Amino acid sequence: MLFKNITLLDENFDVQKNMFVGTCKDKIAYIGELAPQEDFGEEYDGKNKVILPGFVNAHTHSPMTLLRGYAENLALSRWLNEKVFPFEDRLNSDRAYYGTMLSIAEMLSSGTTSFSDMYFFQDGVMRAVKEARAKINFSRSIVSFSDVNFLDDIRVIEALEAVEKYHNTENGKIKIDMALHAEYTNTYSMIKQFGEYTKGKGLINHIHVSETKSEHEDCKKKYGKTPTELFYDSGVLDSPSLFAHCVWIEDGDIDILREKGATVAHCPASNLKLGSGICDIYALKERGVNVAIGTDSAASNNGLDSFREMYLAALLPKGTRRQADILSAKEIIKMATYGGAAAQGRFDSGLIKEGFKADLCVIDTDKPNLYPDFDILNNIVYSAGKSDVVLTMADGEVLYRNGEFLTIDIEKICFEVNRVVKEVVSEVQNG
Amino acid sequence: MLFKNITLLDENFDVQKNMFVGTCKDKIAYIGELAPQEDFGEEYDGKNKVILPGFVNAHTHSPMTLLRGYAENLALSRWLNEKVFPFEDRLNSDRAYYGTMLSIAEMLSSGTTSFSDMYFFQDGVMRAVKEARAKINFSRSIVSFSDVNFLDDIRVIEALEAVEKYHNTENGKIKIDMALHAEYTNTYSMIKQFGEYTKGKGLINHIHVSETKSEHEDCKKKYGKTPTELFYDSGVLDSPSLFAHCVWIEDGDIDILREKGATVAHCPASNLKLGSGICDIYALKERGVNVAIGTDSAASNNGLDSFREMYLAALLPKGTRRQADILSAKEIIKMATYGGAAAQGRFDSGLIKEGFKADLCVIDTDKPNLYPDFDILNNIVYSAGKSDVVLTMADGEVLYRNGEFLTIDIEKICFEVNRVVKEVVSEVQNG
Repeated sequence: MLFKNITLLDENFDVQKNMFVGTCKDKIAYIGELAPQEDFGEEYDGKNKVILPGFVNAHTHSPMTLLRGYAENLALSRWLNEKVFPFEDRLNSDRAYYGTMLSIAEMLSSGTTSFSDMYFFQDGVMRAVKEARAKINFSRSIVSFSDVNFLDDIRVIEALEAVEKYHNTENGKIKIDMALHAEYTNTYSMIKQFGEYTKGKGLINHIHVSETKSEHEDCKKKYGKTPTELFYDSGVLDSPSLFAHCVWIEDGDIDILREKGATVAHCPASNLKLGSGICDIYALKERGVNVAIGTDSAASNNGLDSFREMYLAALLPKGTRRQADILSAKEIIKMATYGGAAAQGRFDSGLIKEGFKADLCVIDTDKPNLYPDFDILNNIVYSAGKSDVVLTMADGEVLYRNGEFLTIDIEKICFEVNRVVKEVVSEVQNG
Repeated sequence: MLFKNITLLDENFDVQKNMFVGTCKDKIAYIGELAPQEDFGEEYDGKNKVILPGFVNAHTHSPMTLLRGYAENLALSRWLNEKVFPFEDRLNSDRAYYGTMLSIAEMLSSGTTSFSDMYFFQDGVMRAVKEARAKINFSRSIVSFSDVNFLDDIRVIEALEAVEKYHNTENGKIKIDMALHAEYTNTYSMIKQFGEYTKGKGLINHIHVSETKSEHEDCKKKYGKTPTELFYDSGVLDSPSLFAHCVWIEDGDIDILREKGATVAHCPASNLKLGSGICDIYALKERGVNVAIGTDSAASNNGLDSFREMYLAALLPKGTRRQADILSAKEIIKMATYGGAAAQGRFDSGLIKEGFKADLCVIDTDKPNLYPDFDILNNIVYSAGKSDVVLTMADGEVLYRNGEFLTIDIEKICFEVNRVVKEVVSEVQNG
């Protein structure tokens, strides 16, 4: 595809106007002010369009979109125990497939090209991802309250099956991470074995960390260490790590995250909605920690819209620190794109740069909410939304265009989602 | 128009399915489970649609949409003095007309049917409102650092001209309020005269109150009173009052606001973006103060999207108070609709109720982001957005439908906005 006379964000996230961008197979093959000599196939008129790297949703649980609106206005423990867990008990791989398809559709419609997904029912999730031709870093979440041998734990067995079966498949579009669900959902033995096992394997460790104050404080009481210190001491952070939430991390934790090159997946909507608090991403950025942005699941968000999440990530530091002049729009867009790609170990994605993967989002700026165009970066962060997305491309393939899904039969998926949730609710009610 | 088999939010904001809603002229004339006997004209298929009261944007400055993206990442004083004031110096009624038209378009596309606008250049604003057939409570902002006789102040003269010329015109669609810009932008003499003059006139007093900490604390130093106490003592609160922001009000102020039946226009995005802080609307609601929701201007937001503002209003109290179970979706929708209509003195608007004005917003729930439909109220607040709005009606007249503006030539307006801002910037640069 050849995008002609289009505005783009270059590899430094600076705005360049009237550019040509050619994609060939899965890559960006040409960027220039002049029309290329080569034939890139379909020509796309870039008038009033801005092309930016596709968003990376750095922390979600895609099958849980089945629970959107199911558990509302509840504190975390009631939310989990009374609503979420009984519902999840009735899920299976087939049902997870429909939830994941719906999630992918919602993400594509907001310009998201890749997502880091922590859940189970991997075969259902993978079936959806392959059909939709989406990009994913999937991890099978390990929760273990026993001291069983690591490799004998049923969740570990499934996690390693996922690595074996799916890692680096579909031309690298599918990657498998390792997920320790959290400190508070695993024994010390399991955490230690997880750290030892993953060391040197080159897989990414995806973990919920210091999401709530009680989780963080309880860990300190139990171990005399913060969760981050515990993961550091047990070798978990010796692998590339993606720590979701980090609302309650402390100064020393930040030093550890920087030293280890870990990424924080900031999930502002979910942290607010569940009453967990607000992660201080300004402190993280100032001190050199990579920050990515995630939606968490639709059960606690209740959407998977990268624009909305980016907007929250931009606004909250200014308001809570009462400093209007911190974190530029450029820095925020970078977190939502390149920051997430790096967290996924996709160092060939997240930038509009020759040789990089063609993971792209195109927005139409000929909309009332995007006039005037004094500042395109700020318009993207503070004024644009999913309704402005006109094209989403992953690995060079157009998956969403002008409101249509090219790889998802959305009518069928929505119909099946309604059927599945009715079945589940009926089963939950009948015990 | 007759909406058939549609889901609606009734006057208690409870969800009713498969209903009929007939509008006749400017009013809702029929609501029922059965098809009406009367002919209401065009029939609208309500399948997968939800009809809710139109949103009221309770605090904005519509011509300032011309400044969207013009003054970014700056603390309030630099934002105002270096960027906003020099730009505004070059505005005139014709230029304000284009800014207002653009603002109305953006608001209609997010289901907003009425707005409380504080600015100047009233003839330009009124020209736009009449052409677009929108609903407005307009007020000419009074800023006066002199001790001149109230009725001799040029801004007061204009404010009263606006009342004389436009109040209750266009079948009541246009109402004029009185606006004292703020405590810190007026002398004590002016505040006192404003209170005395407005008493008993039946007009609404629209004022910026305790937006920033410094404003609030400086007032206490100067007068030994908070801004709210000052307005109470000077009679300003003896008229129905709309206080914008109220980020820094204190316990005693809340008592005053409740006693006087004043409304707080909560502007969460602007308060965050300018680093002002976060208004505690949960405390206001708990203690019986009416809360409405406003966007403030696009110069500090940077949009005029009621869905986005409602979403912030819902999320922030849960996150900042760390209580997931406060402020239901129903309460938040009520603030964004009925709460705003009440603040505008429009007690015949803001509810889906027979005899009320047909100020309506219809959303299409057949979208990936609105499945499943466990909880329509929570889906509206936390999952829906402007891209789901398919029809906006004010006073029984369809103004926006399926992406099209029926009273605004949006292509022309966007073109002219670009021309105007280029002229203004050139004039500012050339001094």
